[in-house]
Amino acid sequence: MSSVFGKLFTLSSWGESHGKAIGAVVDGCPAGLEISEEYIQQFLDRRKPGQSAITTQRKESDLVKILSGVFEGKTTGTPISMIVENADQHSADYEQIKDWWRPGHADEAYDSKYGFRDYRGGGRSSARETIARVAGGSIARKFLKEKCGTEFTATINIDNNSIENAKKNGDSIGGIVSLTIKNPPKNLGEPVFDRTEALLAMAMLSIPATRGFEIGKGFEAANMLGSEHNKFADGTYGGITSGEDILCRIAFKPTPSISKTQMAKNKNGAFGEISIKGRHDPCVAVRAPVIVESMAALVLMDLWLQL
Amino acid sequence: MSSVFGKLFTLSSWGESHGKAIGAVVDGCPAGLEISEEYIQQFLDRRKPGQSAITTQRKESDLVKILSGVFEGKTTGTPISMIVENADQHSADYEQIKDWWRPGHADEAYDSKYGFRDYRGGGRSSARETIARVAGGSIARKFLKEKCGTEFTATINIDNNSIENAKKNGDSIGGIVSLTIKNPPKNLGEPVFDRTEALLAMAMLSIPATRGFEIGKGFEAANMLGSEHNKFADGTYGGITSGEDILCRIAFKPTPSISKTQMAKNKNGAFGEISIKGRHDPCVAVRAPVIVESMAALVLMDLWLQL
Amino acid sequence: MSSVFGKLFTLSSWGESHGKAIGAVVDGCPAGLEISEEYIQQFLDRRKPGQSAITTQRKESDLVKILSGVFEGKTTGTPISMIVENADQHSADYEQIKDWWRPGHADEAYDSKYGFRDYRGGGRSSARETIARVAGGSIARKFLKEKCGTEFTATINIDNNSIENAKKNGDSIGGIVSLTIKNPPKNLGEPVFDRTEALLAMAMLSIPATRGFEIGKGFEAANMLGSEHNKFADGTYGGITSGEDILCRIAFKPTPSISKTQMAKNKNGAFGEISIKGRHDPCVAVRAPVIVESMAALVLMDLWLQL
Amino acid sequence: MSSVFGKLFTLSSWGESHGKAIGAVVDGCPAGLEISEEYIQQFLDRRKPGQSAITTQRKESDLVKILSGVFEGKTTGTPISMIVENADQHSADYEQIKDWWRPGHADEAYDSKYGFRDYRGGGRSSARETIARVAGGSIARKFLKEKCGTEFTATINIDNNSIENAKKNGDSIGGIVSLTIKNPPKNLGEPVFDRTEALLAMAMLSIPATRGFEIGKGFEAANMLGSEHNKFADGTYGGITSGEDILCRIAFKPTPSISKTQMAKNKNGAFGEISIKGRHDPCVAVRAPVIVESMAALVLMDLWLQL
Repeated sequence: MSSVFGKLFTLSSWGESHGKAIGAVVDGCPAGLEISEEYIQQFLDRRKPGQSAITTQRKESDLVKILSGVFEGKTTGTPISMIVENADQHSADYEQIKDWWRPGHADEAYDSKYGFRDYRGGGRSSARETIARVAGGSIARKFLKEKCGTEFTATINIDNNSIENAKKNGDSIGGIVSLTIKNPPKNLGEPVFDRTEALLAMAMLSIPATRGFEIGKGFEAANMLGSEHNKFADGTYGGITSGEDILCRIAFKPTPSISKTQMAKNKNGAFGEISIKGRHDPCVAVRAPVIVESMAALVLMDLWLQL
Repeated sequence: MSSVFGKLFTLSSWGESHGKAIGAVVDGCPAGLEISEEYIQQFLDRRKPGQSAITTQRKESDLVKILSGVFEGKTTGTPISMIVENADQHSADYEQIKDWWRPGHADEAYDSKYGFRDYRGGGRSSARETIARVAGGSIARKFLKEKCGTEFTATINIDNNSIENAKKNGDSIGGIVSLTIKNPPKNLGEPVFDRTEALLAMAMLSIPATRGFEIGKGFEAANMLGSEHNKFADGTYGGITSGEDILCRIAFKPTPSISKTQMAKNKNGAFGEISIKGRHDPCVAVRAPVIVESMAALVLMDLWLQL
Repeated sequence: MSSVFGKLFTLSSWGESHGKAIGAVVDGCPAGLEISEEYIQQFLDRRKPGQSAITTQRKESDLVKILSGVFEGKTTGTPISMIVENADQHSADYEQIKDWWRPGHADEAYDSKYGFRDYRGGGRSSARETIARVAGGSIARKFLKEKCGTEFTATINIDNNSIENAKKNGDSIGGIVSLTIKNPPKNLGEPVFDRTEALLAMAMLSIPATRGFEIGKGFEAANMLGSEHNKFADGTYGGITSGEDILCRIAFKPTPSISKTQMAKNKNGAFGEISIKGRHDPCVAVRAPVIVESMAALVLMDLWLQL
Repeated sequence: MSSVFGKLFTLSSWGESHGKAIGAVVDGCPAGLEISEEYIQQFLDRRKPGQSAITTQRKESDLVKILSGVFEGKTTGTPISMIVENADQHSADYEQIKDWWRPGHADEAYDSKYGFRDYRGGGRSSARETIARVAGGSIARKFLKEKCGTEFTATINIDNNSIENAKKNGDSIGGIVSLTIKNPPKNLGEPVFDRTEALLAMAMLSIPATRGFEIGKGFEAANMLGSEHNKFADGTYGGITSGEDILCRIAFKPTPSISKTQMAKNKNGAFGEISIKGRHDPCVAVRAPVIVESMAALVLMDLWLQL
C-alpha cells in the first residue's frame, strides 16, 4: 500500500506522469471547511514548471478539478476527490530510450520488481506524482491555519548561478530545502514509534530525490554538549510537539535526468551512451518547497485528528 | 497507536523504565525460524549499560524470557512475546525532581499531553524502551540473514576523549551512528509513500534523541552534479532496493540528563536550578548502534513480507 | 478512514450519489493483469438499475473510465483509478425534503455527526457508492480467477411477487443474498483477528442495508451437535481457508426510501408526514449480488497478497 | 497481522493455550482511568471454566498481572501489558493425537499454512486466547461506562438440558449469544467501510467457533416491509450509531473437540478413529457472553477515539 498516506486523514495518490491524469483522494477531512478549486490551484501553481529560467520549460496547465466531497463550497466529511488532467506530453522523447535503464533512475528497479514498466517518464516515482501531495496538503494546511494558526514555509537554499551552470552543461544539481512550521499545534505525536519527527522524516524521504532529513539542530547536534543543546527550543520533546516553531532541512540529490551523455545499461545487459532528452529540471529542489510544506501539513493534520 | 511498528511484521513495545518489566510482542514472523533466549540475549547485551567507562554504570541484568510463539526451539508463526524484568531501579533519584520539568526532556510535553506522568525516568520515551526494539529486531535480522544473507552493522563515529570530557564536567555530548546494510534483499519498498528510505528514516527518527537521517550521499548530494551522483551506487532507486549495500547516518543529540546544574521550570511555573542525579549516559549514541541495526532490520523484514 | 478498504490490496472509494462522479482507486494490484474498461463494465452493468420491473427505473449509464495504472492493456502495479460520471440526477426530488430526516435513513445521523449534509440522496451511505466496490472487486476477482480458479457467485432468494406487491403499495421489502465462493485459495486468513470469516463479515456488513451475515451452517450451527457439524465441509477452520467452497448468506433490510406516507422528524424537531419521491428500488437486495461478490473478492485478494 | 486489533485503541494478543502464558497489550488508552488487577479479574472469572456442571472442569486460576501502563492506580496513556500464566496443563492428553487432524479443528489448516504446529491444544485459535480479549475489553468498557454510561450485557439462549445431554454422549452443541449495548455513544462509525455494524461483525466473527452475526432485526429484516422496519429503533443508520440501544446475536457452532469416537485423517493421509480426551466445554457459547461483551467494547472504544 504505497499510495495511501496517513491514518485518519488519508491521502490516496494515483496517476502516472504520462497517463491520462493525476489525482488525489483525501479522506477524513472534517466537515465544514471552505475549499475551492481556486484555493487549491495556487499551491499547484507554485510547484508548476516553466516559471523561471531555472525550472523545466514544460508547460503544464495543471488545472485541478474537485469531483466530490465539497458541497456548496464546504467539505462534507466525505472523501474529496481531486483530478488534474495530463496535457503536454512528450512521450516521443521517451520512445527512443525505452529499453534503456537511465542511470540513477528507478527504471531497472521497476523492471526487476514489477517485470513490466510504463517507459514514458518516471511512472509513479515521477515528480509529477507530487501534484497529488500538494493538492492534498493544501486542504490540510488550510484546516490547520484556520484552527490553530499554523503556517508552513519552505525555501530553497541554493544560488541560481550553480543551477544555471549545471543547466548550461546539460547537467543537474542538488539542493537543500529549509522548512519552518510556525505555531504548530501542541501535543501532537506519540512517544514511541509515532514521534512527530519520525513521521516528518518519513513524509520528507517519501518525496522523490530526497536523501536526508534534519530537525532542530540536526547533524550539528551530534557535536553539541547537553548543557548547550538543552537551551535550544527544539520544537519536539520525546516526539511530542511543544507548540514552539519546528525547523527542518531536507536534502535533494541532483535529478538523474540529464542531457549530458552518460553510460547506461539496457534490458539485455548491454552498455551504451545515452542522452536524456525532454525538458527536465536542472535542480528538482527549486520546485520542492511547496511539496515539502504539503507533506508536513499532511503529517500534522493526521496527528491533530488523533489528539 | 504509537507502540506498534510495522504492517505485516509487527512489533508491539510496552513497559516503562521504572515499571515492572519491558516487553515486546512480535507478530507475523514466519514459522520455522530457530530462536532462543540466548540468541536474543547477545543483542540485548550489546545495548546494556555499564560495559565501559563511557556508558552509564547502571547494572542492568536485562535477561530476556520468551513467553510464547516458539515451540521446540522454532517459531510457530504465532506472536512471539518477550519480556525483560526491570531490576536495578533508583526511583529515589527521581523523587526529588518529580515536580520539575527537566530541560530538553519530554516531562513538560507529557504533562501537557496526558495530564499525568510517571515521574520516574523518561517513561515511554526512555532509552530503556529500546530493549523491545532490539529484541524484536534480533528476530528480523536472523530471518533476513538466513534467507537473504543480509547483515546490519552500525558503528559510532566519535572519539572517547570528548565523551570523557563531557562526563567529567557533568555534561553530555551527541554523536553520529553509521549503518551499513550488506546484501539487502532486492525489490523492497514501493515508489510513492512506502519508499525504503522513507521507512528507514521513520524508523531511525523514532529512536530517542535522534535529530537527523541520511541515506547514500545524504546532505552531500545537495552539492553534487547529476553526472557525478549518477555514478554512485545509491542502494535505492525510486524508493526500491537494488540489492546494493545501503549506507545511512543517524545524528543523535546529547542526552538531556546531565548532573551539571541547569535552570528548569516546574509544574507551577516557577524557575530554579536542578542537577539531575542518577547514572546517565554521557553519550547516548554509544549504545545506539545495536538499536539502529534493529530498527533497520524491522523495516526490511516488514517490506520483505510484502514482496 | 472510512473510505479505504484492505491492507495490501486497497480500494479507496469516493463520490456522492448526486455529485459529479463516483470513483475508485485500487492500489496493490500485481503488475501484468489484463484489464479493460469493457471487462469492468460488465460487472457495473449487473448492478445498474432499470433492468427489470423490480428495480428502480433510473437510467444510469454508469460508463467506467480507467485513468491510470493500466498501460498497453495490462496493470503496471501502480494505482488503478477508475471513474464513473454521474448523469441522471433528480436533485429536485430531494429539494422538498431537504430539512426532513427520512425514517430509517442516515439523515439524522449525518446531521448529528458532521453538522452538515449534502441533502441530495444518501451521500456516502448511498447504494450508488457501491459502484466503486464493484469496479474494484472486478479487478480482484479477475486476478483470483486466473491465478487460482476462484469464482464468486451470488444469488438473491426472494420471489418477485412479494417485491411487486411492495412496489405497488409504495413500500419496500428486504431480502437474502446467498454467496458461493468456488475454489477459494487455500491457507488464507489468520487464526486470531484476521480470520477469513471475520473479514468477510466486515466486508458484507459494510454494504448499505445489510443486517446479518452467516458462513457455513450459520445460525443453524447453533442447534447442531459437534458430531454432526464436524462432518460438514465448513470452508474455514480456525479462520483459515481449506480450499473447500465457502458459503455465506447476507440479510438485507427493506430500503427505507418509500413513497408510502410516513411520519418523520425534521431538523427543528417538528413532526410531519412525508412521502419520498424519486425512483427507488423496492428491494435493494435485487441488485446486491454483484456487490456481495465484489466485496468477497476484495477480501480474498487482500488475504492472498498476505500469503 | 492477525494479532493486533483496532486502529487507535489497539489490543495485541499473544500466547498459546499450552505455552507459558497468555497476554494482552492495550495501547491507546487515555491517561487517568482507574484500573486494578482486581477489576480486570472479575471479567476473567466470568469466562473461566469449571464454574458449573455445563462447562469444562479444567481449573484455570487465570490470575491477571498488570506489568505496565498503570501508575499509582491510574493509566498513564502508555501501553498496558497484562499477563496470565498458564498453570493447569494436560499436554499429555494431546501427545497421543499429535499426528492426527481433529475433525472440525484447524489442525490441518495450521499444518498446511505454517508447515509446523504446536500440537498441544488449539494454538492461537484456542478459546484460551480469548483471555487477552476479555482483559483488553475490560479496560475499554470501564472507560465507556464512566465517560458515556455505556453498558454491555450478553446472555446465552440455550437450555441446560440439551447441553447436559450432549455432554453425557461425549458430544457438544452450539448456541446463540444475545448482546445488548445500552447507551452506546452517539455518532460512532463511518458511512462506508468502517460502519459500526461492519466492525462489530468482524469483531464477533473473530471469536473462535462463531458462524453468524445479526444486528437489529437481522435475518428477520429480510422479510419485513420498509414501512414496518422504518418504525424500528435500529441503533445504527448509515453505519453511524444513534445513541439508541444496539442489539446483536451471534451464532456459535458446537465445539469440534468431542470424546465421542470420530473418523479422522492424519498427516500421512491415513484415516482412523479418534476420541479427543481432555476436558472440553460441551457448549463453548456458555462461556462466550463476556467475550462477546469485550469485543463489542473494544470496537466502540476504538470508534470513540476516532470521534
